[in-house]
Amino acid sequence: MENNGSVLRNPEAELASRITIKGILSLLMQSVDEKDGKRVISLGIGDPSAHSCFKTTHVAEDAVSDSLHSQKFNGYAPTVGILQARRAIAEYLSRDLPYKLSPDDIFITSGCTQAIDVSLAMLARPGANILLPRPGFPIYELCATFRNLEIRHFDLLPEKGWEVDLDAIEALADQNTVAIVIINPGNPCGNVYSYQHLKKIAETASKLETLVIADEVYGHLAFGRNPFVPMGVFGSVVPVLTLGSLSKRWIVPGWRLGWFVTSDPGGMFRKPKTVERIKKYFDILGGPATFIQAAVPRIIEQTNEGFFKKTIDLLKQTSDMCCEMIKEIHCITCPHKPEGSMAFMVKLNISLLEDISSDIDFCFKLAKEESIIILPGTAVGLENWLRITFAVDPSSLEEALKRVNFFCQRHIKQKPALTIKSSKVTTTK
Amino acid sequence: MENNGSVLRNPEAELASRITIKGILSLLMQSVDEKDGKRVISLGIGDPSAHSCFKTTHVAEDAVSDSLHSQKFNGYAPTVGILQARRAIAEYLSRDLPYKLSPDDIFITSGCTQAIDVSLAMLARPGANILLPRPGFPIYELCATFRNLEIRHFDLLPEKGWEVDLDAIEALADQNTVAIVIINPGNPCGNVYSYQHLKKIAETASKLETLVIADEVYGHLAFGRNPFVPMGVFGSVVPVLTLGSLSKRWIVPGWRLGWFVTSDPGGMFRKPKTVERIKKYFDILGGPATFIQAAVPRIIEQTNEGFFKKTIDLLKQTSDMCCEMIKEIHCITCPHKPEGSMAFMVKLNISLLEDISSDIDFCFKLAKEESIIILPGTAVGLENWLRITFAVDPSSLEEALKRVNFFCQRHIKQKPALTIKSSKVTTTK
Repeated sequence: MENNGSVLRNPEAELASRITIKGILSLLMQSVDEKDGKRVISLGIGDPSAHSCFKTTHVAEDAVSDSLHSQKFNGYAPTVGILQARRAIAEYLSRDLPYKLSPDDIFITSGCTQAIDVSLAMLARPGANILLPRPGFPIYELCATFRNLEIRHFDLLPEKGWEVDLDAIEALADQNTVAIVIINPGNPCGNVYSYQHLKKIAETASKLETLVIADEVYGHLAFGRNPFVPMGVFGSVVPVLTLGSLSKRWIVPGWRLGWFVTSDPGGMFRKPKTVERIKKYFDILGGPATFIQAAVPRIIEQTNEGFFKKTIDLLKQTSDMCCEMIKEIHCITCPHKPEGSMAFMVKLNISLLEDISSDIDFCFKLAKEESIIILPGTAVGLENWLRITFAVDPSSLEEALKRVNFFCQRHIKQKPALTIKSSKVTTTK
Repeated sequence: MENNGSVLRNPEAELASRITIKGILSLLMQSVDEKDGKRVISLGIGDPSAHSCFKTTHVAEDAVSDSLHSQKFNGYAPTVGILQARRAIAEYLSRDLPYKLSPDDIFITSGCTQAIDVSLAMLARPGANILLPRPGFPIYELCATFRNLEIRHFDLLPEKGWEVDLDAIEALADQNTVAIVIINPGNPCGNVYSYQHLKKIAETASKLETLVIADEVYGHLAFGRNPFVPMGVFGSVVPVLTLGSLSKRWIVPGWRLGWFVTSDPGGMFRKPKTVERIKKYFDILGGPATFIQAAVPRIIEQTNEGFFKKTIDLLKQTSDMCCEMIKEIHCITCPHKPEGSMAFMVKLNISLLEDISSDIDFCFKLAKEESIIILPGTAVGLENWLRITFAVDPSSLEEALKRVNFFCQRHIKQKPALTIKSSKVTTTK
């Protein structure tokens, strides 16, 4: 299993350096002091299904159950997905587009994760590079490394509501740039892009003759100033690959039902050779269970707006609570209030803390001392920031942020006089 | 989406030339003459779930249903799979091994297909080659092409019960050979290897300092002379990667629950760097639904032997019927009676047929004229052979083979005198 690195500089070394969110969260969990007896609360991962206030709708559960018990869907599905599910997803996504997607534009994946890999694997070729946001979602970096795509990062600008640094994109792109990745609603930033900003991104990508991968796994989870606008709206400006899933909006990330969609009225992805290549790639993937696919039409058609509204209202409530409580914590600031998704970024002022050297150190000590799990920003590309998930039941969230506040108060640098006093106390121990 | 071919000779051209089973079956299905009114019967794909006599056990269905309705498994699973499922699979596979697998040896995949891709992606590096059986299962060729692994074919020998040509393996392997693939019980040949032959394969692989990928997706589906012996039995002779799934033995291919297993008591795959690399690869995969994973322990523990025996008895009955009926068809011969799996290979004597130029031509005309779908051997690497699936309900199988017989009688070359007579008949039309 060596690699002489003829394709990339040194993919194995690059791979070893890749931090994964699940990897670091699992290490944090291990460092919780179990003797302490405090209930562990995780604000680490975008999976609200653990909280009773975030349950999926009975419509979805019943649809899957009926599909299973019908015994009609125990067999293989076409590897690109069953037609009725592709058609339902095409209709669902077309509601928000100025053109109609066809079932042939939809490829069903095992969650959005597999849709990410499909996109990157389909675009990879020797010498190619891809532009990824910083902060971002590290599965992109991991996929790019496995598929031998060179990674170039552009910044998201906190002072501009985490908008894309378009100048950076123009400076980074060249003729080998195969795509620009846009995650909207934003993970990890909790922002929602305006129509105008998305339009500018599309125009920039078009000018650079590349395409846009639009990760909309948090699609429709917007509760701020800007409504959710799918990138596919600009599909005639630039070819868009839209990635999504049932995971977040229906609160069933474990069902692994995602999609890879060619939002491309210009038909760049409809060339027979391209379609054939995508289809062959799907032949090796596995994909989601047939009976879950068969339930998709009913899930999409019968879920009522009340269910979606309840989720949005709850996310608005918990994100507001988060912001209010963080205002009370002196070493943490929030440059941009969350407007969507299930997580946002806050800045850690390390210089105010006495014995904390970095965001990673902060999170490990927080886990050990307070049994609270928060993702260090380093895991998503921003050192000395934190990613906080607010898709948590309100009482747990309140308890968690109180403990973060206690933790910060305990570790805050004392004023000079107090420092001396405090060190005296320590020596008398 | 070009590829300058720096890694392989010309992967894109190679990809384009790859025949997939599902691709060719779908073309055959399209060439059925619908006006004809005959019921379409497919002996094409190894998915018996369409036939009422091959239904999964209620144990499996209830386990998945309860797991879904518990609402405890709607969230993300660890990407390598949930612990209780990994433990259950480790115990299940260990029953037939001289050592105990640990849950850490088990990685849960989206069906056996994804397990194939994991193996090949994990072993791929510039310059590497892999030895694949001919006839074989074309997903291996497709994965190898996507992962830039050079393919070298060794023959399976029909006159020796489709045993591996070990001399060919020794001649083909070099220091860049990363694995030898063995499919047992055999797809497409329907053979089951003896303990002795498997031992020889392991010894050969060990001598060549490579490893064995043991595709046991049809594990335990043996009804002939040889019992099913897992390759992992020889894990201390040579490191084995065992691939399997619930798909065939439990008749639920659509549930996409497979496994990639390091049957490797020597611990070659337990090196921290290797384990880390495998785990990171699983982070980008997607994997099967959490609630299906959660049902695995109950499915494995509570399925009774009667269910398995019923399947085996039925496969024995239908495969025997196949062989008997094929004896009546003059242009088709069966060199080795099936002993396992759900399909076998028969030889087409093209020279006996009047207006059929190849196995592909045979299958397309058969689909058009008789609405019978059979896979041409070319799709699995053997020109002028056919792969027949016998996991079909007995009455459909009988009807299908009768129609194949009519078809062959119609297309058989007449003796010289008769040919003239027949051509006269044609001209008088």
